[in-house]
Amino acid sequence: MELDWLLAPPLPESMPRQRVLYHRLREAILSGRLAPGTPLPASRRLAVSLKIARNTVLFAYEQLIAEGCLVADRQGTRVAQFVAQPIAPSSNRDMPTALLRLSNRAAAAMQPEPAREAAARPFAPGTPDYGAFPFRSWRACLERAWRDAGWRQLGYAGHGGDSALREALAGHLTTARGLSVDAGQIVITSGTQAALDLCARLLCDHGDTVWAENPGYLAARVAFSLAGLRVHDVPVDGEGLAPSEDDWNRHPPRLIMITPSHQYPTGRVMSLPRRLALIERARQSSAWIIEDDYDSEFRRTGPAPPALFGLLPDSPVVYVGTFSKTLYPGLRLGYLVLPHAIAADFARATTQAMRFGQGIEQRALADFIQRGHYTTHLRRMRARYAARQVALRAALKDAFGPSVELSGGEAGLHLVMWLPESIGDTEVAKCAAEMGLGVRALGSYTRAPMTCNGLVLGYGNLAEGMLAEAVRRLAVAVRSPASHRREV
Amino acid sequence: MELDWLLAPPLPESMPRQRVLYHRLREAILSGRLAPGTPLPASRRLAVSLKIARNTVLFAYEQLIAEGCLVADRQGTRVAQFVAQPIAPSSNRDMPTALLRLSNRAAAAMQPEPAREAAARPFAPGTPDYGAFPFRSWRACLERAWRDAGWRQLGYAGHGGDSALREALAGHLTTARGLSVDAGQIVITSGTQAALDLCARLLCDHGDTVWAENPGYLAARVAFSLAGLRVHDVPVDGEGLAPSEDDWNRHPPRLIMITPSHQYPTGRVMSLPRRLALIERARQSSAWIIEDDYDSEFRRTGPAPPALFGLLPDSPVVYVGTFSKTLYPGLRLGYLVLPHAIAADFARATTQAMRFGQGIEQRALADFIQRGHYTTHLRRMRARYAARQVALRAALKDAFGPSVELSGGEAGLHLVMWLPESIGDTEVAKCAAEMGLGVRALGSYTRAPMTCNGLVLGYGNLAEGMLAEAVRRLAVAVRSPASHRREV
Repeated sequence: MELDWLLAPPLPESMPRQRVLYHRLREAILSGRLAPGTPLPASRRLAVSLKIARNTVLFAYEQLIAEGCLVADRQGTRVAQFVAQPIAPSSNRDMPTALLRLSNRAAAAMQPEPAREAAARPFAPGTPDYGAFPFRSWRACLERAWRDAGWRQLGYAGHGGDSALREALAGHLTTARGLSVDAGQIVITSGTQAALDLCARLLCDHGDTVWAENPGYLAARVAFSLAGLRVHDVPVDGEGLAPSEDDWNRHPPRLIMITPSHQYPTGRVMSLPRRLALIERARQSSAWIIEDDYDSEFRRTGPAPPALFGLLPDSPVVYVGTFSKTLYPGLRLGYLVLPHAIAADFARATTQAMRFGQGIEQRALADFIQRGHYTTHLRRMRARYAARQVALRAALKDAFGPSVELSGGEAGLHLVMWLPESIGDTEVAKCAAEMGLGVRALGSYTRAPMTCNGLVLGYGNLAEGMLAEAVRRLAVAVRSPASHRREV
Repeated sequence: MELDWLLAPPLPESMPRQRVLYHRLREAILSGRLAPGTPLPASRRLAVSLKIARNTVLFAYEQLIAEGCLVADRQGTRVAQFVAQPIAPSSNRDMPTALLRLSNRAAAAMQPEPAREAAARPFAPGTPDYGAFPFRSWRACLERAWRDAGWRQLGYAGHGGDSALREALAGHLTTARGLSVDAGQIVITSGTQAALDLCARLLCDHGDTVWAENPGYLAARVAFSLAGLRVHDVPVDGEGLAPSEDDWNRHPPRLIMITPSHQYPTGRVMSLPRRLALIERARQSSAWIIEDDYDSEFRRTGPAPPALFGLLPDSPVVYVGTFSKTLYPGLRLGYLVLPHAIAADFARATTQAMRFGQGIEQRALADFIQRGHYTTHLRRMRARYAARQVALRAALKDAFGPSVELSGGEAGLHLVMWLPESIGDTEVAKCAAEMGLGVRALGSYTRAPMTCNGLVLGYGNLAEGMLAEAVRRLAVAVRSPASHRREV
């Protein structure tokens, strides 16, 4: 039998001979070129005829025998009888349409979103000042963590995450946030999105209702939808989440997601009466409150408003925090603080649900907090962001007049500039994007029937030298004819 | 009004005066000690009477006004009327029972599991040799990644993950695994668990059926259950997954999870006829196959069996790989390889579903692969693990006789030692655990009606010096009267 074609050129580069032989034999068998039952030459003979080592042939034969493509017995080696009608590998059938679409629930994760580059542009919300990151002290902590790395750091994380980090974080939250918590209440996660997903899946079942702030944090809605929850939008007013009796009665929640310290994106602070009433009502309704305390580290003045967590004993509140803004988003470390009553179960379920790790980074972060670097960094950034906000407010008043309506900025990295009805926020954002700005329309965080018209202006990455030019471009976008709505 | 108690000792350490004042005022208001409507002294007068700076009082008042606890007008500052019936913060009411249990689906993540320490013990499955990790070259890659770090590495990851890593990985998979893939087909994830979760949620809707191998990988079942899928167990025989007509007709799958190169945990290799038939039937049934190619990097001899992915064109196969065993689990980097037809949509949905990052580590890994360190490391570890397996096989035959039945070991880091019916695998594992071994019972991976009786023996972390003693203890456990089942 003529088998020279088995190693005929062109031979794929960087593939060993034995693999080429194996691949071509297999393809010939699958395509029917070598029919079932065809006897193959003995390995020695084929090796001579192909001018290769006998071992090369043996390897290929052995592999194909293991796979059931060839059979070998006393009569020799031959093509197996396994496929009555050989499947032609070149038959270019398409996949059934049903396979080519993602699941229905995946639609929640397919919302239009700005290009990735937008996150690096002036006014992009949620982007910290990467240049101010304390690379040197952080990397020194990483160095130390690597030096001491053992299986605990290199393997999967234990229940709730690295114990040193949980201890350090409990101390930090007590001192800096006035939360009275211990390490056993903390579960380290790979960021806020993972924390919300855990709450959605470990506290709720499919079809349960979650309340989301309207306008609100878009990524939370994605997490909840993908977890199979029914997302019910509840409007936000000047005092924070404002549920109606109708909301409580007709859409009873199992989960209530809020950003009380600095509502995202409006920047409003939830009033204490509203907080107390919400806790009370949630408890009566057996609903869990998720308090996303994002950006609370960057308070402008005075103490932060008290967290809901710990405001009243035995409150059904889960506190969510992240290091994405205080350090950098790519670190992917955040955390949950849970009431004692469910903390241990939650941590245990998390271990199996998430298979977490990042032990080196967790240990480095514990070190970073314990050495005081974290507090120092927060203090520096607090001053820096506050100065940026003051400068931005002044520049906006210069550009748009003293009566321009600004909200937010008690904490965090962004302001909201409200727009008159005659100017469309979506249109401004589009126009601004064309000029290289990362500003986002308030409307993009809002769902009907609620309406909001304004711009979310991040200043975290707005270096002093860029401010004037960024505001100048923003003014051009706002005043562009394309941004003016037709008379309503 | 007498307000000296506001700053009476004991004062909490390390809390600024203004915060103490604020906290005590707030507690007094919430507890009703200061009734709604009570007028407070002017800030100057209170400052004098408490012997503190006026600003301290002003900060506290301002904060409480912002929270709605106090109101200020021309008449002065007084306690707000917000709570008709003040809630006593000390009322130690318990949370409703409905709040104190995790969701029904969380039960899937509450399976009993070995203590974390077991992962570091001899025979623990899935634990690589941490001591052999190339710390120096890996850390040099991390150093370089840190040196060049910009917003792309420090921020959230773009669609599909770091582009350099996807390129490097595509090249590696082509050369080392014979997969013909490009970077656009790759989605980097934070490990296998995240990859399975993505497949479950982006390819399936709630209530869809997934087939799991029986016995099989326990963590996959957790991921599928938490994603709301119905897990249907399909038995595994000597040729791999062995679905019956009944399985196809009465439990039609949307997803089929398999480990064809080295079935987990039995170590059997799926035959080529079985592979071809499965692809064909899956295509007809509009089912996706997840090919978890774990540990395929550690082949003992010859080329790896061909992956299902790419075996036939337009196959509904998603390929899953991980760096958990080839580098270290805590790194939390794995990947999916998808057919072109859905790769872009899948990557885009992943970005919103997961909020991934670890850009520094991804860039370092790209560098590590490009410089050839990864291939070198794999070659070293392949030889090392192969030697360990040979030594383990010999030691087991010495200890249990030449007829001891071993399976697996074509790839990966573990062998299965089958036990006679008279010895219970669960009992042996329990007894072995008491002697400090990490061996697991095959039965713990198995669900009724399937029965398996054997031990899963990991040798990844079984250093040469430990082998003899580990096998000696194992023999004691196997021969212990406690491991003998009563006559059946």
